[in-house]
Amino acid sequence: MKIVPVVPGPHEHLTSTTTQAILRIQSRILGFAREFLMERGFVELLPPIIGPVTDPGIRGAKQVDVDYYGHRYKLMSSAFVYKQSALLAFDRIFYVAPNVRLEPLETASTSRHLAEFHQLDLEMAEVSREEVMDLAEALLKHMVRAMLAHCEPQLAELGRDPRAFDGLLGTPFARLPHAAAVSQLIAGGHPQNPGAEIDWVAERILSEQSSGPIFLTDYPKGSRCFLERESPDRPQILRTFDCLMPEGYGEVISGGERESHYPTLITRMRETGENPSKYGWYLEEVKKGIPASAGFGLGIERFTRYLTGAEHIWQTSAFPKVPGVFSA
Amino acid sequence: MKIVPVVPGPHEHLTSTTTQAILRIQSRILGFAREFLMERGFVELLPPIIGPVTDPGIRGAKQVDVDYYGHRYKLMSSAFVYKQSALLAFDRIFYVAPNVRLEPLETASTSRHLAEFHQLDLEMAEVSREEVMDLAEALLKHMVRAMLAHCEPQLAELGRDPRAFDGLLGTPFARLPHAAAVSQLIAGGHPQNPGAEIDWVAERILSEQSSGPIFLTDYPKGSRCFLERESPDRPQILRTFDCLMPEGYGEVISGGERESHYPTLITRMRETGENPSKYGWYLEEVKKGIPASAGFGLGIERFTRYLTGAEHIWQTSAFPKVPGVFSA
Repeated sequence: MKIVPVVPGPHEHLTSTTTQAILRIQSRILGFAREFLMERGFVELLPPIIGPVTDPGIRGAKQVDVDYYGHRYKLMSSAFVYKQSALLAFDRIFYVAPNVRLEPLETASTSRHLAEFHQLDLEMAEVSREEVMDLAEALLKHMVRAMLAHCEPQLAELGRDPRAFDGLLGTPFARLPHAAAVSQLIAGGHPQNPGAEIDWVAERILSEQSSGPIFLTDYPKGSRCFLERESPDRPQILRTFDCLMPEGYGEVISGGERESHYPTLITRMRETGENPSKYGWYLEEVKKGIPASAGFGLGIERFTRYLTGAEHIWQTSAFPKVPGVFSA
Repeated sequence: MKIVPVVPGPHEHLTSTTTQAILRIQSRILGFAREFLMERGFVELLPPIIGPVTDPGIRGAKQVDVDYYGHRYKLMSSAFVYKQSALLAFDRIFYVAPNVRLEPLETASTSRHLAEFHQLDLEMAEVSREEVMDLAEALLKHMVRAMLAHCEPQLAELGRDPRAFDGLLGTPFARLPHAAAVSQLIAGGHPQNPGAEIDWVAERILSEQSSGPIFLTDYPKGSRCFLERESPDRPQILRTFDCLMPEGYGEVISGGERESHYPTLITRMRETGENPSKYGWYLEEVKKGIPASAGFGLGIERFTRYLTGAEHIWQTSAFPKVPGVFSA
């Protein structure tokens, strides 16, 4: 049985020079990301928090209901439905958005899950998965380069060796289709299910074996929700990608091309057991027509953990919410 | 009886060039604010959304409960308790934070209330109200100047005359103590209650009569919650300030010095009918000792409305939540 981490209270946590160095780096890298995205014509929007519709939960995380003047609203588990619709206004948008997912209690010990976390969540109209992967790679390289240039005292405080980022900066990120990753894992003795997402243990294995980030592409259809677009020329394969950091830190990005064709979206919902009537305003917008798009979400706490070499994800949040733990 | 505004659906709203110009300005002014604050040593933190404690609601707005693994948590009505505690890590911090307040239904027609909105919420350790007012004034002037320099096409699209900002940029903001504002309002025929916050009608009157922003200071004790510090040498007077924009746009900032002395805070809670036992972790932190501080929250949608000359507050949000109205 794994042990739930003992998270220090606000006084101990916030007066620690480790926490201070981590939060300063987090603050700075978001500035670097904004600078990069603004230069490329992105508009940052203010994130919505509650609404009648959010995207379906993933990997067993529970959504949170709120009572909005007698209507049943949800806390956003991601800003997905909003960012896809916001492309009606601008071709390129992003949010720095807080999300709440009541993850299963066993995730408290993964060092990778918080019940409240933040995503840099971006979406681009009329681009392919490959274009958005190229953007993700360039964005992460920019953030790391700028961090190395501007956060030297904080990295020194944390004992994080700048050479840890040689692999990320040096070469193009590896690109590994899901099926190839499954074969590699099974050959190495890990029983990865070929029809499912790469599990957490498998992610760590792949991540530990790599000297740089890995794009995991082409998830099989059953492993992801209806929002992800099925390949038009390779049925059963989704136009998705994840991005894993090296050194065992695992996934920090999940993205891909989106389904925006109304009849196909309805079919995909039914195939995944979702009831279209739950997706009120969002489906109405899709029916009226929204742009085809691709995008991704970057987990800010997870990426901060990798950058700073933190052992636990809770170290990257000023007031961490570990799943199941009553705290500040 | 006032009429609830008819808010267009996402398609009509987001494809409007008016909405696009407003949202672009909003995105840019937050960039200008971040630039200003980072240069002055502020650290931006990621906003918390749920927690066991939030600040007491104001002016009859209701808080929202959520079930967090069987614990009763609240959606943040502001990040107040977190920003005050975050000064344990850094002397100057800010959030761009989403807040949810279920405002009374009659506010749907004020043109000034959204049930979900965003604040630029900042706090500084060991400074006086006057220092933080000076910072607020310099920040708003910087944001307006940078907007005039960089958002000319959007202002033209909106028909917003740049000369509207002459009053804000030209001279120091007016500073008007609450008691003087009450006298002025009563002399002008408005029945303002001397013991209460300046009401919405009164705010509009003051705002319409002024050619530039007004700092309203020195609210009487009964009109604000226990978090605001009572003047040590002028009992019954709080070290608060609001900032009203001209042209009838009204209040966009509320701030002041904070009570951080544990026994005084407990007394103030009891005086205002609050039960200290509801403030668990926050009071524990205050008891252990947190820095004395001052700060403010700037309502981003309200300030955007003033800058863009929008008639309604819902025009300043991509997916507006008008109180009581079921929407996206």
